Amino acid sequence: MIALFVDKIRFFDTTLRDGEQTPGVSLKPSQKVEIATMLAELGVSTIEAGSAAASEGEREALRLIAGAGLSAEIATFVRALPLDIDYAADCGADCVHLVVPVSDLHIGAKLRKSREQVCEMAWNAVEYAKERGLVVELSGEDASRADPDYLAGLFRGGVERGADRLCFCDTVGILTPEQVASVIPGLLFAPLSIHCHDDLGMAMTNTLAALKAGASAAHVTVNGLGERAGNTPIEELVMALEVLYGVQTGIRTDGLYHVATAVSKMTGVPLPLNKAIVGEMAFTHESGIHAHGVLRNASTYEPIRPEQVGRTRRILLGKHSGTASVQAALHELGYVCDEGQIAEIVARVKAIGDEGRRVTDADLMAVADSVLDLVREPVITLKQVTVVSGSNVIPTASVTLTVNGGEVTCAATGNGPVDAAIEALRRAVAGAGDIRLEDYQVDAITGGTDALVDVTVCLSKDGRMLTSRGARTDIIMGSVEAMVSGMNRLLEERG
Amino acid sequence: MIALFVDKIRFFDTTLRDGEQTPGVSLKPSQKVEIATMLAELGVSTIEAGSAAASEGEREALRLIAGAGLSAEIATFVRALPLDIDYAADCGADCVHLVVPVSDLHIGAKLRKSREQVCEMAWNAVEYAKERGLVVELSGEDASRADPDYLAGLFRGGVERGADRLCFCDTVGILTPEQVASVIPGLLFAPLSIHCHDDLGMAMTNTLAALKAGASAAHVTVNGLGERAGNTPIEELVMALEVLYGVQTGIRTDGLYHVATAVSKMTGVPLPLNKAIVGEMAFTHESGIHAHGVLRNASTYEPIRPEQVGRTRRILLGKHSGTASVQAALHELGYVCDEGQIAEIVARVKAIGDEGRRVTDADLMAVADSVLDLVREPVITLKQVTVVSGSNVIPTASVTLTVNGGEVTCAATGNGPVDAAIEALRRAVAGAGDIRLEDYQVDAITGGTDALVDVTVCLSKDGRMLTSRGARTDIIMGSVEAMVSGMNRLLEERG
Repeated sequence: MIALFVDKIRFFDTTLRDGEQTPGVSLKPSQKVEIATMLAELGVSTIEAGSAAASEGEREALRLIAGAGLSAEIATFVRALPLDIDYAADCGADCVHLVVPVSDLHIGAKLRKSREQVCEMAWNAVEYAKERGLVVELSGEDASRADPDYLAGLFRGGVERGADRLCFCDTVGILTPEQVASVIPGLLFAPLSIHCHDDLGMAMTNTLAALKAGASAAHVTVNGLGERAGNTPIEELVMALEVLYGVQTGIRTDGLYHVATAVSKMTGVPLPLNKAIVGEMAFTHESGIHAHGVLRNASTYEPIRPEQVGRTRRILLGKHSGTASVQAALHELGYVCDEGQIAEIVARVKAIGDEGRRVTDADLMAVADSVLDLVREPVITLKQVTVVSGSNVIPTASVTLTVNGGEVTCAATGNGPVDAAIEALRRAVAGAGDIRLEDYQVDAITGGTDALVDVTVCLSKDGRMLTSRGARTDIIMGSVEAMVSGMNRLLEERG
Repeated sequence: MIALFVDKIRFFDTTLRDGEQTPGVSLKPSQKVEIATMLAELGVSTIEAGSAAASEGEREALRLIAGAGLSAEIATFVRALPLDIDYAADCGADCVHLVVPVSDLHIGAKLRKSREQVCEMAWNAVEYAKERGLVVELSGEDASRADPDYLAGLFRGGVERGADRLCFCDTVGILTPEQVASVIPGLLFAPLSIHCHDDLGMAMTNTLAALKAGASAAHVTVNGLGERAGNTPIEELVMALEVLYGVQTGIRTDGLYHVATAVSKMTGVPLPLNKAIVGEMAFTHESGIHAHGVLRNASTYEPIRPEQVGRTRRILLGKHSGTASVQAALHELGYVCDEGQIAEIVARVKAIGDEGRRVTDADLMAVADSVLDLVREPVITLKQVTVVSGSNVIPTASVTLTVNGGEVTCAATGNGPVDAAIEALRRAVAGAGDIRLEDYQVDAITGGTDALVDVTVCLSKDGRMLTSRGARTDIIMGSVEAMVSGMNRLLEERG
């Protein structure tokens, strides 16, 4: 493999600035410290910890992060204004990401200044930031639409006045790899970063092209978070460099998934199902031919082992499932079947999938029992559930179950009607076993109040885990259905 | 601009095959026809309508699509088996996407055959498919890990036996643009398609590189749906080619968003928030500096106009909002404020955003009323709501409101407790105005049954629309809170 890249690529993470600017996202200072700590442990070189001039909350976060003794360089976004630079220095930042607009559109339409005025401001700011003892990364905003000669002049002057690094910002995501190859080599007056947006799906393409053209750092965000279509995702860039180009990134790749899920949870931006590396489906297989291949030899349909990024493989059952996956799942659940029985189970699993339904563990067990002619007396049967809730009512539920033949009625209150119903169920079966609700999930409900609500629960008993589901137009009944189905399976005698 | 690409790029859409193989996704034949019709209207050249050999349901869908008189060529996935080809021909397909494994890993570990046997099978299948009158696109599965000489021989032999087109499949998403540039030019014995997966975030990069290296068609899916990290997204590829390279793709770009949302709804795979072109945030602006720029001149922070892809721009209010966005929103809601009042409203909007909350129309109005010292007697006040639900109970709700001073109590049943409560509310205010629930949305609930449930509703009255929200641990009370807050705003006298 020819060395296409510089020896050491730096990762400049902007999750706490670009990522936090995602409309609707808002992180508290304590959450920012938590994320910064994870990023430093992951091994990024620089953490852009927000924009010091924006608000007192931003400054508080910056002070906390700068004082946390992290191994990464701590930067903050500043405009070419002494006030911004003072904020940065006073909060203890190591570095300023000094952003100046460089396209005529931004200089004129947004800033209403002249090219010369912008140069003057930028250079003065560089000098002032150096006086204040800061590392300066001088960044050209909307550089992809700038006059390359003007940009080169501004950058050269900045470096002469002490700028330590430069950054080319593709602010609206309109760069092409051809343009990158032609413009980047003329800007290498100091180590250069590339900052890409994904508006046209080109963030990865352009980032890689820039690193090939001589850039030595990439601006990235966790999960590609950012304004509009977001920024270059750290997890994709790191894994592409490691796996495809043999680059030693210095990033602890087995921490990528943990950071991705933590950031998703704190920002409230869900991980896209199909997202490379971190999406729920990235290491999930359903289709018969693929799952079969993976079970024989994982590399047939997996470019990397899920463990490399801190994940595990998942085989999902559904309409595309083949014999191999169903057999593997049955084995795990403790069933022993002959070939004919497996063929019949596969056919029935496909039929459930054909209706557009997920096939949970409880579904597969019901199918297998029926095919194997195993009559299992259900351990628990739901006789009734009643729930009352309202503005002047503490959410209250009662359930009546038969458990191992005896009737049990329990009541409970909760934070809401679902919570109350689940608690009443748990109490009613407590005598039969200690069942815990490990995970409760409702898909987003969109459209009307009478939409089908899909509830999936993960229950455990004595370390054994099991998924089951309920789907009703009533979220309470959907939750109860999922619980009863899963509890029954966990309580029955396995033989 | 130098012409980098062939005159006419063909789009081979595999949403109904690769996309439908996404674990958990399952489309009914009628839905497949609907999607195929939309794709044909969008202008794709070929539609891969599933895999005829997979199941009777797949064949039914293929027959319906092939018989629908669409302008696109209708293809189906087949293995190198006469049975598969017969299914394709008998169902009325125009074309077969004839897929043969070409890497030693797939030939050996998955198929347990020799290279020669695979060649033989492939060539015989080409000849047989031509006999049956089908267009043949001969596809090398896992081509990126194949011996290039073996692949070239297999392709050359295929074309000699009548294959009309060829396809290079990067089955596990491990191609690099360098590899593309070196291998594709040696395979152009017939028009060549490129089929990429996004496991390492490289699908767009490699697809564009292949089109530059001489490929004339790209396999794509709507929203990049597909197994694992999915395939090359049609919306990104089309817009990148049109906007960045001036290619006339022949795709009706203003239909892209409509198709994206329809496919998302039918497959149940949500559109990622940050996804390029089709994500909710792609044309949404919050941050002060960005929204300000966009309001002055949209191109400062938007590479394409949202209308080009059938969308509209959205300015969201939150902690990053500046004066310009808040002013624009207030103007739309009919408020007239002076500078000092706007500054105060901006500060309070930021404070709501700082708590990590979305700022709905109703939130902004509450803030503005308070700042402008407008005392608005609420038109309706909630006195009580009570809901009963359960296994043997028809979900029933009663509400008591004061409406314009008079007390009204109404009861209603529904498909679930939320539905019943909303219906009771609607009846109680019917005398004051005809309020419609246009949209009801609950974010996915993850974690526990006592998680905070975030309900956003969009209500309308006489053509005026308004959003409001409620957040409670009780989904019923959260829904009622959102409804009452929005109804009040729609019913009050506007001055």
